[in-house]
Order: sequence, then C-alpha cells, then structure tokens
Amino acid sequence: MAKDFITRQENYSEWYNELVVRADLAENSSVRGCMVIKPYGYAVWEKMQHILDNMFKQTGHQNAYFPLFIPKSFFEKEAEHVEGFAKECAVVTHHRLSKSPSGKGLIPDPSAKLEEELIVRPTSETIIWDTYRKWIKSYRDLPILCNQWANVVRWEMRTRMFLRTAEFLWQEGHTAHATRQEAEQETVKMMHVYADFAEKYMAMPVIRGVKSANERFAGAIETYCIEAMMQDGKALQAGTSHFLGQNFAKAFDVKFLSKENKLEYVWATSWGVSTRLMGALIMTHSDDNGLVLPPMLAPIQVVIVPIYRSEEEKQEIDSLAQNVIEQLQKLNISVKYDDDDKTKPGWKFNEYEFKGVPVRITLGARDLKEDKVEIFRRDTCKKEIIHKDEIVSKCEFLMKDIQDNLFKKAYDLRASKTRNVDTWEEFKQEIEKGGFLMCHWDGTAETEEKIKEETKATIRCIPIDAPQEEGKCIYTGKPSHRRVVFARNY
Amino acid sequence: MAKDFITRQENYSEWYNELVVRADLAENSSVRGCMVIKPYGYAVWEKMQHILDNMFKQTGHQNAYFPLFIPKSFFEKEAEHVEGFAKECAVVTHHRLSKSPSGKGLIPDPSAKLEEELIVRPTSETIIWDTYRKWIKSYRDLPILCNQWANVVRWEMRTRMFLRTAEFLWQEGHTAHATRQEAEQETVKMMHVYADFAEKYMAMPVIRGVKSANERFAGAIETYCIEAMMQDGKALQAGTSHFLGQNFAKAFDVKFLSKENKLEYVWATSWGVSTRLMGALIMTHSDDNGLVLPPMLAPIQVVIVPIYRSEEEKQEIDSLAQNVIEQLQKLNISVKYDDDDKTKPGWKFNEYEFKGVPVRITLGARDLKEDKVEIFRRDTCKKEIIHKDEIVSKCEFLMKDIQDNLFKKAYDLRASKTRNVDTWEEFKQEIEKGGFLMCHWDGTAETEEKIKEETKATIRCIPIDAPQEEGKCIYTGKPSHRRVVFARNY
Repeated sequence: MAKDFITRQENYSEWYNELVVRADLAENSSVRGCMVIKPYGYAVWEKMQHILDNMFKQTGHQNAYFPLFIPKSFFEKEAEHVEGFAKECAVVTHHRLSKSPSGKGLIPDPSAKLEEELIVRPTSETIIWDTYRKWIKSYRDLPILCNQWANVVRWEMRTRMFLRTAEFLWQEGHTAHATRQEAEQETVKMMHVYADFAEKYMAMPVIRGVKSANERFAGAIETYCIEAMMQDGKALQAGTSHFLGQNFAKAFDVKFLSKENKLEYVWATSWGVSTRLMGALIMTHSDDNGLVLPPMLAPIQVVIVPIYRSEEEKQEIDSLAQNVIEQLQKLNISVKYDDDDKTKPGWKFNEYEFKGVPVRITLGARDLKEDKVEIFRRDTCKKEIIHKDEIVSKCEFLMKDIQDNLFKKAYDLRASKTRNVDTWEEFKQEIEKGGFLMCHWDGTAETEEKIKEETKATIRCIPIDAPQEEGKCIYTGKPSHRRVVFARNY
Repeated sequence: MAKDFITRQENYSEWYNELVVRADLAENSSVRGCMVIKPYGYAVWEKMQHILDNMFKQTGHQNAYFPLFIPKSFFEKEAEHVEGFAKECAVVTHHRLSKSPSGKGLIPDPSAKLEEELIVRPTSETIIWDTYRKWIKSYRDLPILCNQWANVVRWEMRTRMFLRTAEFLWQEGHTAHATRQEAEQETVKMMHVYADFAEKYMAMPVIRGVKSANERFAGAIETYCIEAMMQDGKALQAGTSHFLGQNFAKAFDVKFLSKENKLEYVWATSWGVSTRLMGALIMTHSDDNGLVLPPMLAPIQVVIVPIYRSEEEKQEIDSLAQNVIEQLQKLNISVKYDDDDKTKPGWKFNEYEFKGVPVRITLGARDLKEDKVEIFRRDTCKKEIIHKDEIVSKCEFLMKDIQDNLFKKAYDLRASKTRNVDTWEEFKQEIEKGGFLMCHWDGTAETEEKIKEETKATIRCIPIDAPQEEGKCIYTGKPSHRRVVFARNY
C-alpha cells in the first residue's frame, strides 16, 4: 500500500479523487468545475485519441471542425433536445469588456450586448445540422461521415475530475444518411467500435446495449451504449451512439433529392466518447498502490532504474541500459531510463508504481555481477529475478500478458458482481451490495422511475445479446421477455 | 484558369475568399465570425498539427490542457496584458437558460447570474500561470515545458476565413524557467522551430526577426516572429514566440526556491501558431487554377484517374492501379484511386487540380496499349507522357521536386519584391507597389506610428540576421544601425 494513501476499502470515492491528483493526471483549476489535465494525464488521453482516431478513419470517417458557439435559437428548434441541453450551460451575452464607470476593474460593456445570446456547445447536433443543410442537396452528397475532436461545456452542479466536469474534451461523430437502415447500421457499428476500443485497449470489459427511454439522448430515437463496471460495483456509461432518425433534419430542414427524384429528409446519427474514459480507465484497474495502466495506453511502458555506487558501475549500467532501450524501441515499447541522481531509487520505485508504469527494471550493480536484474510488473506487484539477456523478451511478453491479465481481472470481477435477481425484496437487498442485477422489467418508464426513486438504481441498458427469456417484472410482476441490467451508476 | 474563377490579378482578396470555399477548405458558419473547417481543410491542418507536435516533443515539450474559461479578474492582474486582451472577447455572464416569462423562447436565467464573469480564453497566460503557482516550489520543478492544442476566441470585427476569425484553433506553448538566459534561449529556439516548419513543410520562406515595441505581445518583454510574404506582396505574421520576463510570475506570484536557497520569480515564455497558417499556405502557393499544396502537407499526394470504354479495359487499369498504389503506399505516398463512375474524367481533372493535389496520373486505356500514361504536376500545370513502369519512381521524384520548386518560386517572388529604400519620397511610392521595404528607422515608437498613419505600413520585424549598417531613418533622418522590414500586412 502506498504511504499515506487511502485504500479503496476505506473510501472509494476519496481514493479516486486523491489518486487522480497524486498520479499527476489532473487537478481542479481556479475555474469552478473545470479541471487542468496535467501532462501525464494528457499523455494517456492522447494515446486514446490516437487509437480512436485511427479506428474512425478506418471506418470511413473524416475530421472537421464546427463553431464553439451555438445561437440560442438553434436549441429551440428540436423539441426534446432543448429540454435536455438548453439548461445548465455557459451563456455568452457580451462581446466586450470595458472599464467600470467607477474606474475600478472591468465590466461587460453595456454597448456590446449580443442581439442573440450564444451558448458554449454542450453538444453540436444543432450547429452541425445547420451546416449540413448547405452541404446536402442530393443522394450523391450522402453519406456524410464527420467527426470532431472538441471541448464542450455542461454546467454541472457537482463535478468530479474526468467523470463529470463543466468543460470536458471529447469527440463527437455526426453522420448523415439517405436511408433509415444505413443510419441504424452506422449507429450499431460505432457502438461496436467503442466496445472494441474499451476491451482491446483499455482492457475494460463492457456490455453492449440499448438505453431505455428514460436514459436516451435528448433528441434520439434510440441510444446504444457501452456500460462498464467499476471496482466498487457501480456502472459507468463509457460511450454512446445515437440513432437520431430524421429529428434534426426536420428541425433544420435538411432534405435531399433521392435517386427516385423525391425530396426526403436526411437520416442522422451521432456518437461520442469523452475524457470520462480516463475516469473509467483509472477506476477499472487501479489499486491501493496507485494507478495501474494497461500497457497499450501507458505513456511509459517500461522504466529502467539504475542502482550503483561508483561512476564505473554507472557506466557499465548505462551501456547495458542503452542496449536494452534500443531493442525495446525497435519493438515499439516506450521506455524511460531514469538515471536522475537528484532522487533515490526507493523514491523512484514508489513514483513509477504510483503512476502505473506497467514494468520496472532495476539494474543493480551488485545483481549485475551475476548477470541478474530485477523485473517488477505493476498489475500483480510481483518481482522476479531474470538473466540480463532475457530483459527484452520478458518485456515483450509482459506487454501482452499484463494487458490480458488486466482484462481478465476486470472481467472476473464483473462476473462475480453480476447476478440474476427475481424478486423485489431481493432486489432491494442486493442493490446495496453493488454490481449489476439482471432483472425482468415490464418495459415502462414509470416502473423504471419508481425503482430509481426507491433504490437509486437505473436500467443501465438492455444488452443487445440478451437471450429471450420469459419472466415477470421485479417491480410490477407484469410479463417480460428478457432481463435488463440494473445498477447504480456514475 | 479554372472556369468561373476569379484571378489573383482581378481581385486578390476575393480570389482568396472564393478559393477557400471552392476548394472545400472552410466556409462561414451561422455564428458571426466563426468558420466551419471542412474535412479537406481539416486534413491539411491535421498534417500541420502532427508535424509540429512531433517537433515540440523532440524539443522536450509535453502537451497538457487548461480551462476554456478565465475569470475576469485574472486579466486585471497583468497591466499590459489587460490592455491587449480584455477588450473584444466573449463574456459568459450566466450558467443557465430558462423559459422566458412570456412563455416564448429561452432567456438567460436571472437567478443564474455568475458572481464573476468568465471570459472565453483569447490566450491562456493568465490561467496557466495561476496553475503554475501550484506546480512550482523549487528549482527542481523547473523547467516546465508545456504546450496545449486548443481553440481561442477574439471578437474580431472584420473577419476572414483562417486569417482572422472570432474562434480559431491554435497551439500555445507556455514554459517556466529558473533563469532569464534559459527563457530567452527557449524563446529563440521556438522561433527557429516555427521557421523550420514553415520553410521545410509549408515551402514558405520566412524572415526570422524581433518585433518593434508597437507590435509586441501584450505583456511580453520581447516578441520574436516569423514573417512571410504573400503573392500580393503583403506580409503575414506566421508565428510568434514571446519572452515574457517575470511579468506573469509577478502578476500571479509564482516564486521558486533557487539552488542558492533564495526565493525568486520564475521566468516565462509563450509561443503559438494557429489556423492562420492555413491562410498563409493557401496564399503563398495557390494560383488562378485553384489551390496548390506542397506535397508534405497534401492529404492526397497522388490521384489516379482511369479512362476506359469497356469493363475489360477497366479491369486491366484496375490491376495496374492496385499495383501502383501498393508501391506508392510503401513509400508513404498517399494516393487516391478515383474510379467513381458518377463523374467524368474531365470533371475529376478540374476537381483535383482545384484542390491542389500535387500529382495526377491518368491511366487511359488507349495510352496503355502503348504502355504509356500521362502524369500531371500541379505546381507547373505541366503534363508529361511516361512509360507505365516509371510511374512510381516519377511520383517519388515529384514529391521532392514539387516541394523544392514551390519553395524556390516563393523565395524568388519574395526576393523580387524586397528592396532597399532610403528616402521618404521613395518609400511612399514603393509601399504602394507592395513587398518588403528594407529601411533605416530611428528605433522610436513615435516614428513607426507616424509612418503607419501615413502609409498603413508597419515594421514587420527587425531581422535577427540584419547586418550592422550605418544609415539614416527614412522618416526623421536620425541615425540608425540596421535596416528593418516595412510592409503592409494581413
């Protein structure tokens, strides 16, 4: 256990907050609800971005950039969207500051009041569909498959770094299609892209599913999602993909001339993941010793720490280290050689352990006399003594093994905390223990609402592969044809 | 000349505006002064970002992310900075919209007025130095070498796509150092990084120099810059690097304990380039046939267009094309095979020519009977017939040759429009012809101001390699020791 560091058992929520700061991932800024993403945290996010961006491009998408500001009236055009998003938001009312008449300080210049207020985008459907109207005339202009990497602002009252912040970074895909079927296929495809990313790179198992009406995106016909389970048994929505039907095309009058020469409204999707994934990554794998990163997302995959007494010993270690670094780099393994003499080896061990570096190699002068080195893997915190000639092959092995092991650990934990529940009494007891409860539900928003009121649990999703199974709603006893996932959530 | 397309001669300014839209780079949005960067334009920007980001990392910088919003009071802390930036900006005054009492539409909720207004960042020195105060305690914490890729907002009255928009994308480096010397070295280093990028990748020659006091960044001790000349002879400031002294450290109380155990203020730099570079790139190389892109920044470097009459011919061309594509991809040359049968070859020729694709290969069934293909280079608009076995080696050659030729063309143009001017009469005549006038100047802000008032020309920079030369100020006749660059500018 890291010194002075709170355990998950003691207080999971504080453990998370402290971990984010102590591992140098992020910190709160002087601006309410806005965080600073520090270089180490940003390096992880960059890795995520890079991989996702490639996945989007491989599925035919292109990046573009749309304005930060959205005219207030745009929100009023889509009836459900306005309810969901034109509430807690940052409203720009003036375009100039001037000296206060009192002579002290600055005030918004009364003569520079905007005719129409601008909203800092909470999501960009409205401004993008206002643009697509100009881009789309005929079926030849379709599909449009755009993505944007951007910052968005939602004025959350209670914020937590990465999980819920007033400003956050994300990508938002916005696609336009000639047919309903094509748009639906796109929506499902992007859910799978997200799920593949979560499982393969984040080592985080997810359930692929559909949201109930209560949890749907404001303005969507159907919301697909990936849901993960954190170590405390709470659910975290890690990505969503929305089938928007023709709602935004109708709101912004976007029509196209079909092959049959008929004017039709365009079909839409939108999908996004955000810096919230950082929170999911941290909470899925980290432990009481600090951050644990899967090798595929670790900015430093291997750290080498030298231990020596004399300059001569140091030179010998340097030359071995250089050799190892070159070989590791050829295998695309990122490695840091920390021979900074301002800090002691023990301090370095703690530091890299806390920062979740997957593998640490200690090159000690004494061990090296016998050609031995110590290798430490962060996932299990186990040390091993190996021959120095094995370093590179061992690192290569560990990159895959740690990645696989982290996924398996998370998968097993989720399995152990997922169970079928069939009665309301049992539900009320079980939900207190956390985890996913697989239950029958009568399919109504009212029932879901009542269950939420009484237990704070919501339907996280209806899994897309949920088998047909006849049963009775845990709350109303009405008939149901499949189980859905209930949980408390972030 | 492209059909219906205005020439540079007719109206350079309109030529630019129309080019940006017709080449699918960007367009104006419904939000005043904000542009939409379209996928093709964004792909060029992404290439720039990618290369610059690598250059920053190779010089030891790390990316991070700081809040979009800056509390109003932060601007008031640095006396010069507030003059420069707390003027035309986007002011957030409310954090909620609610239904208007009239029942129609939304209004900023009077109960959700912010205690202190937030400004959408026009640049981030203030919020970053407020953060650095928490990061810096001792000389061991220095240097800090951070960069951020972000959007910023400056409420410009007259906007032009890429060159001057209310919102734009940029990177801003912010570094903190223990000594004045180290900070000055960093400032100069980053100017050279920008200059290398401009010349090597954008094929755009630049003058490296120092700004006069009038043109300095608000809050800087010294501003270094790179200045380019557009085809109309006007100057464009393409990047700036500021030595900020201890101004921001003092404003935000950022001190460190030195090796000598003394509390000292930290030394600072900041440096940035923006989507303005897109404007510079377009105006440096493009012609009356549309966009011209240097190969190193072209999203599509080679386009292949097939011409055929029968399915049999098509198949033969397909197999040759596939072969060529594979070989080009091995050389990291990005290639597009446009066999879309919805458009005719002639339309495709115009389209890719207008979009500045450096090389076009036409695979015509008739030519191929004699193993011949046509190759077209966009920079000179010259066609050549070559043997089909030469395609790959010719493309490889052209990537370098076009890049070099574009640089040379721009270099020669600049040379032809740069001249020494020694009298005020001559200055007033010559400035009307455009270009850079190398003149003696007495070094005072007043003189520069008067010259600007009378001729709209400003000092673009004092070149860092300007040779010592005794002379007399063109305006006052007072002594001067070197020539500086006067020009009208974007």
